[in-house]
Amino acid sequence: MALIVHKYGGTSMGSTERIRLVAKRVAKWARAGHQMVVVPSAMSGETNRLLGLAKELAPGKPDAAYNRELDMLAATGEQASSALLAIALQAEGMESVSYAGWQVPIKTDDAYTKARIESIADDKVRADLAAGKVVVITGFQGVDEDLNVTTLGRGGSDTSAVAVAAALKANECLIFTDVDGVYTTDPRVVPEARRLQTVSFEEMLEMASMGSKVLQIRSVEFAGKYKVPLRVLSSFTPWDIDVDVEAKSGTLITFEEDENMEQAIVSGIAFNRDEAKISVLGVPDKPGIAYQILGAVADANIDVDVIIQNVSKDGITDFSFTVHRNDYARTIDLLKEKVLPSLGAKEVTGDAKICKVSIVGIGMRSHVGVASKMFRCLSEEGINIQMISTSEIKTSVVLDEKYMELAVRALHKAFDLDQTAA
Amino acid sequence: MALIVHKYGGTSMGSTERIRLVAKRVAKWARAGHQMVVVPSAMSGETNRLLGLAKELAPGKPDAAYNRELDMLAATGEQASSALLAIALQAEGMESVSYAGWQVPIKTDDAYTKARIESIADDKVRADLAAGKVVVITGFQGVDEDLNVTTLGRGGSDTSAVAVAAALKANECLIFTDVDGVYTTDPRVVPEARRLQTVSFEEMLEMASMGSKVLQIRSVEFAGKYKVPLRVLSSFTPWDIDVDVEAKSGTLITFEEDENMEQAIVSGIAFNRDEAKISVLGVPDKPGIAYQILGAVADANIDVDVIIQNVSKDGITDFSFTVHRNDYARTIDLLKEKVLPSLGAKEVTGDAKICKVSIVGIGMRSHVGVASKMFRCLSEEGINIQMISTSEIKTSVVLDEKYMELAVRALHKAFDLDQTAA
Repeated sequence: MALIVHKYGGTSMGSTERIRLVAKRVAKWARAGHQMVVVPSAMSGETNRLLGLAKELAPGKPDAAYNRELDMLAATGEQASSALLAIALQAEGMESVSYAGWQVPIKTDDAYTKARIESIADDKVRADLAAGKVVVITGFQGVDEDLNVTTLGRGGSDTSAVAVAAALKANECLIFTDVDGVYTTDPRVVPEARRLQTVSFEEMLEMASMGSKVLQIRSVEFAGKYKVPLRVLSSFTPWDIDVDVEAKSGTLITFEEDENMEQAIVSGIAFNRDEAKISVLGVPDKPGIAYQILGAVADANIDVDVIIQNVSKDGITDFSFTVHRNDYARTIDLLKEKVLPSLGAKEVTGDAKICKVSIVGIGMRSHVGVASKMFRCLSEEGINIQMISTSEIKTSVVLDEKYMELAVRALHKAFDLDQTAA
Repeated sequence: MALIVHKYGGTSMGSTERIRLVAKRVAKWARAGHQMVVVPSAMSGETNRLLGLAKELAPGKPDAAYNRELDMLAATGEQASSALLAIALQAEGMESVSYAGWQVPIKTDDAYTKARIESIADDKVRADLAAGKVVVITGFQGVDEDLNVTTLGRGGSDTSAVAVAAALKANECLIFTDVDGVYTTDPRVVPEARRLQTVSFEEMLEMASMGSKVLQIRSVEFAGKYKVPLRVLSSFTPWDIDVDVEAKSGTLITFEEDENMEQAIVSGIAFNRDEAKISVLGVPDKPGIAYQILGAVADANIDVDVIIQNVSKDGITDFSFTVHRNDYARTIDLLKEKVLPSLGAKEVTGDAKICKVSIVGIGMRSHVGVASKMFRCLSEEGINIQMISTSEIKTSVVLDEKYMELAVRALHKAFDLDQTAA
C-alpha cells in the first residue's frame, strides 16, 4: 500500500462528465489499495471568468492593492472544483472529504497572487487517510499567518500537489495532464520525438524553463528539493486502464541519477521563439558595466534570459542579452534613452526574429565534446550561430528564427534521440 | 457617526454593473461618516449553478453524506461576490477588505446546509472599521468547531447580516432588496396596499411565515432576539439618493413597541394558497390521539401548519390540519395506510383547493373584537370559513381558494389599511 498524490489540471476537471472520470480513476487507485490524496485545479475557464469579472470592476492596470481580493476571488475556483470532486467520489462509493488551503492548512507567505508555500500540516489528512477516506485538497492556494487567502500564481496547482506530496512523504506524485509525458522534443516539430520514461529533475527544470510547459517550473524545483518522485501522465487515457500499467506510464521525473536512468548524454531538445536579442555595442570594458545595463532593465521589471559578454578588444566590448519578445521595443527605448548616454557606448542593436534552441542532458556533465557535436551539426546544416550560452547540463544557441525547426530536427537526429535508449 | 450594516441580495449583486452600483451606494454611506459593514449574497443564479453541477455528479435524492461538500461548494458563491464587491469599493476609492465566514470567524454548529450561528468575533472587523475600511463579510456561511465550512440554508444571508449587526451592536441593519418595504398586503392583490413605515418584529414574523418572503424568517427572529433595528428597503432606487432620505425609506422592523409605532390594531393581511386541508373524521376522543396522527406525519418529515381539534360529541371528534399542498397526496396515503387502521377512525377527507388568510397586528393583544370583526367582514361577503386558528397577534382562517382575493381585499378595507395611520 502506497500513499499517492494525484493532480488533475483544469482541462481534466473541465465538466461534470470529466470530473466523474477523474473520480472513477481515483477510486480505481484507492480500490487497488492505495491511500489517495487528490489536488485538482479549477474547472477550465473558471479562473479566467472570475478574474474577468474583477477586471470589469477595476479596469486598467491591475493595482497591487487589489491583490488580496483577487486571491479571495480566484481561490473559489479550486474550492468549488474540489468539493465537486469529493461529491463525485462519494457518488462512486468512496468516502471523501475536501479541504481548502486554509483548512489543511497550507501556510504561505503573504505575497498575494504569487505566494510561496512555507509549511503544510499533515495531521488532519493523515487521520482521514487512516480512516479510509480519499482526501481532496484545493490546488493553487494557501493561507498566510493572518488567515488571509493567498494563491500561488498561475499553474500553482502543480506546486500544491508536489508540496502536499512532500509534506505527506508520498510515494509518488502523479500529475495528470493533457499530454502523456515528457518528450525528447516537441512532436509537432519532430515526428520522431520519443517519450522519455524517466528524466532527471534537473533536466526537467531546464526543459520547463524553455517553455515545455508540461509542468510549472516551481513544482519541479519543489520536487527536486524535497525529493518527491513526480510522474507526468495523461488524463485522457481510458479511466479503467489497469493500475499497474498506469503506474508505469508517462514520464517519471526522478532525483536519483543512478536508478533506472536512461544513460543518454542528451535527453531532449528544447526551443522557443519567444525571445529577442539586444546588443549594446562599443562598451568601454570597465567594472560595473553589466550592472549599469542590466540594472536599468531589471528596474523596468523586464526579465533577461541569456547574457553574453565577450572578451574586450582595445578596452571596448560588446554586451548582448535576450529578453521576452514582448519587451523588445521597450528595452531598446530604455537603453537608448537612459543607458547609452551615461555609458559612452556606441549603439544599441537588436533582432526580434531569433529563436533559442537548447540541448539538455545530465550526461553532459561527464561527457566532453557534447557542445562541439552540437555546433558541428548546426554547421553541417549551414546554420549560423548568433549567441552561445552554456550551463552544466544545457547548451543553448541563439539562431535566426527561420532555422528553428531545421535545427531542432537535425539535433534530434544527431543525438540519436529517435532511438530508444538501451 | 453610526455603525451601519448593509445587506444586498443576489439580484442586487447580479452583474458587475450592479455590483458597481452597490459599491457606489456603500461608499456614499461611508463618506457620510458612517462605519460600514456590507454582507452580500452570491451573484444571482450562482448558487443554483453550483448546486446544479453537484446534482449532475450525484443524481437522485440528495444524500446527507454530500452536505459537507455541498456547503464547501455553495459557500464559494458568496466568497466570490464579496471579493468582487471589495474590489469595486477599492475602485471607488474606498479602502475595503472582504472576509469569508471562517475568517471573521462566524462560528456555527455543524448542521451542514442549515447551520445555526453560535458566535461572531468582532475584533478583526472593529480594527478594520477603526482604520477606515469598509468591511465586506460573506453572507450565508460560517465555520464549525472543526473548521468545516457550513451554510445557513437558503436566504441565510439575511440572517448573517442581522447576526453581524448584533455582534457589532450596529445602529441599524439595512436589508436592500428588490421591494421597497413591507406592505399591508400584497399590492398585486390589493392596489391600495400601503407600505408600512414601521412594523414590529413579531408582526413581521407572522407575515414572513405566511410567505411574504421579504425577509428570511430566521433573520427576523434573530433581530428580535438581539434587538437589532432592521430596515427593509429597495436597492433599485438611484444610488445617489441622499443618505438622510435613504435612511428613512423602506420599512423599519422594530422591537420597541412604544416608539414611533403606528397604532393600527391590524398591520397587515397575509395569505397563501400553498396549503391543503386534511381531516380525520370520527376519531375516538381519548388521550394520545393527536400524537398518533401527527407523530406519523412528522416522522414522514411533513410540516404541519394549522391544527384544529374540535370538542367531542359522544366521545367522537374530528381532527383537522393543513400541510403544504405538495405533501397533500402523500399525507392522505400515509394516514389511510398507517394511521386509520390502528386509530379506529372512520375516514380521512381533504381538500387541496383552500387558501389561508390572516390578519396580523400587535394591537390585537390589547383590543377585543378584532377576530369577530374579521368574521363579520367575511360573512358579509358571503365567504364560508372552514377552519379558524388564532395566536396572540394573528387570526387565520382557511377558506375555499376561490375567495382568496376577495377576502384579502375586503379585510384590507374593513381594517382601514388603505388609510395612513395617524
